[in-house]
Amino acid sequence: MTTRPTEERLARAALCRVGDPDDARLRQAVADYGPVDAWQRLHRGDQHLASRGLAPLLARAGEADPAADLARFERTGGRLVCPGDDEWPCRLDDLDAAGTFAPYALWVRGNADLVVATGRAVAMVGARAATAYGIHMATDLAAAVCDAAWTVVSGGAYGIDGAAHRGALVVGGTTVVVLASGADVAYPRGHSTLFAQAAKSGIVLSEAPPGAAAMRHRFLSRNRLIAALGLGTVVVEAAPRSGALSTASHTERLSKPVMALPGPVTSSMSAGCHVLVRERGAILVTCAADILETVSPLGSAVAPAVRGPERPHDGLSEEARRLLDAVPVRRPVATVRIAVTAGMDPRTATGRLAELAARGFVERSTDGWRLAPAHRRTDSAAPVE
Amino acid sequence: MTTRPTEERLARAALCRVGDPDDARLRQAVADYGPVDAWQRLHRGDQHLASRGLAPLLARAGEADPAADLARFERTGGRLVCPGDDEWPCRLDDLDAAGTFAPYALWVRGNADLVVATGRAVAMVGARAATAYGIHMATDLAAAVCDAAWTVVSGGAYGIDGAAHRGALVVGGTTVVVLASGADVAYPRGHSTLFAQAAKSGIVLSEAPPGAAAMRHRFLSRNRLIAALGLGTVVVEAAPRSGALSTASHTERLSKPVMALPGPVTSSMSAGCHVLVRERGAILVTCAADILETVSPLGSAVAPAVRGPERPHDGLSEEARRLLDAVPVRRPVATVRIAVTAGMDPRTATGRLAELAARGFVERSTDGWRLAPAHRRTDSAAPVE
Repeated sequence: MTTRPTEERLARAALCRVGDPDDARLRQAVADYGPVDAWQRLHRGDQHLASRGLAPLLARAGEADPAADLARFERTGGRLVCPGDDEWPCRLDDLDAAGTFAPYALWVRGNADLVVATGRAVAMVGARAATAYGIHMATDLAAAVCDAAWTVVSGGAYGIDGAAHRGALVVGGTTVVVLASGADVAYPRGHSTLFAQAAKSGIVLSEAPPGAAAMRHRFLSRNRLIAALGLGTVVVEAAPRSGALSTASHTERLSKPVMALPGPVTSSMSAGCHVLVRERGAILVTCAADILETVSPLGSAVAPAVRGPERPHDGLSEEARRLLDAVPVRRPVATVRIAVTAGMDPRTATGRLAELAARGFVERSTDGWRLAPAHRRTDSAAPVE
Repeated sequence: MTTRPTEERLARAALCRVGDPDDARLRQAVADYGPVDAWQRLHRGDQHLASRGLAPLLARAGEADPAADLARFERTGGRLVCPGDDEWPCRLDDLDAAGTFAPYALWVRGNADLVVATGRAVAMVGARAATAYGIHMATDLAAAVCDAAWTVVSGGAYGIDGAAHRGALVVGGTTVVVLASGADVAYPRGHSTLFAQAAKSGIVLSEAPPGAAAMRHRFLSRNRLIAALGLGTVVVEAAPRSGALSTASHTERLSKPVMALPGPVTSSMSAGCHVLVRERGAILVTCAADILETVSPLGSAVAPAVRGPERPHDGLSEEARRLLDAVPVRRPVATVRIAVTAGMDPRTATGRLAELAARGFVERSTDGWRLAPAHRRTDSAAPVE
């Protein structure tokens, strides 16, 4: 889909390049002149703006070529989503009302529609230096949230973020990756495959222009987008000074519920979660049902509305799915062990595994069963292993 | 200390033998006639009482020999503590006000004074089938609570109860063991040494008469005494239907704080604790300071705020930090660009970058500046992800 860029689209694309939205002087100029005029003044080196402290941005504005940025981004399959567009989630406008600031525009990649995807969405964030417990729980919770046809929004980092995205993808759910770098830059690099997978069924987005490197201050302002796109934020693991707590703060500011997963008090990675519950009124959640109860309209905890794309697992029975969850990704394991993991008697498991094999989900080797290559992206099914 | 038993003391000793305090008809008789008259009527087989449904107790009352019970208990170093005695904790009278019922008397062993010992006391209870985490935490928390000159009150069960007493004894603290069996009966047997140690510096007590076996219904009514003797109750680990939750209920009924230690949501032994926090307004506690803050008079024991570890960035000036925020993680960028991003003039930036390099935060390459390898993690680990 290539849209002929209008003046305002070009201006907003340029503003993303020229300055960060947390640059108060730039925002003031945009508020005063509107995006198109503000951009044109910056671009032609308007001395009045220079005198208003925007001099450092004029050089960048002179170099900026939004048409080229847009063309390049669209060639990679991306699109620019601007305020007022059909695909602009109005939840982002709440940021202005909450005293932070909406992005000038979003650079969006992925096959889902952003408004549809975030219709029923939960943000799930946490520590990069997550523990095995945190990873396990983030994967599990995200999968269960997606199973209930909700979307998971997170930040693409190692640790909890990555596990949340993976958990969503495992069940064929929709996930929204909100990057601090450009939407076409895989940061961290180790997540480039994950981001590609997320884009297939969901969305990878950023307010930073294409090619932008990940920079420290961008992580912090990025967190407000994660908070804004969900109906609530779950903190899975967080050290006391973790960035996840900044996402929690943004969520509070937006008057949306902050949820925290408890953990052992002996784990510093749960300390931030406990502080949220003890001191900041966060809701303690222990399972996806707790989360959905919190973010759903009162009393409607279960209500199918927005559904993600059809996924191969959709046709499977509850039992078959449970069994599939217990099949290892690569290293084959004997039927009996899979049955035990799935909490199923071995005879039933044998029959079910044969069915799953016939449908191409699993394959048999001399040592037992493992996932079929086409379904290995389920390797994120880490919780089971 | 041997006191010549008065009529009322003998009557109360006898009432402990004749019936349990949760026998509503017996309590009514005691309320109607007073303990002495009620006991004498029971003892002589009063037909009026028999007609009031107390017939089953008359046989027992005929056999009861409170003077012998008392003499035998006092020979083992014990004493009977009755309402009105100096050693009677008036907190027990709150039970009547809260719609449960105070014991007729307490059979007390141990070298501490019950009123002194429970002046500043916290109940700490939990599952018998505790996990290693629960045992570790109960021991630790009890030791720290006693280190702050508070007393720990618990039942004598295996698991959390035993660990709490042990933690108290380890630091030479005072602990109060509230048994469901007679105060001279070690139940469970494996805790006989523990009870003997507790009696040395603290107290072992029961409302059941000497020699009474532990019976199921006694455990439940015993829990109200644990709740009554502390200024609040900490549940360390509890399965969803654990007896510890009955102690929590008694604590709520007495309008005292219930506290719960969080744990992994994957542990069924923490599930009861999480239910208390989520659904019953219990206070999440993670350390002894949290507990003491809760049970201490307002403002007299404020728990220290949870702080993250010191970070290398902590010593940097605001300007240096802002600049550091603008330095890319991996791909080097020229000084001018970094200056623009940081909103700083390039000359200042050049000087600051050199300083940051000298302090090991950034490194220079032919293409510009980027974060030094040692700080590539901290960068996002700081207020980031």
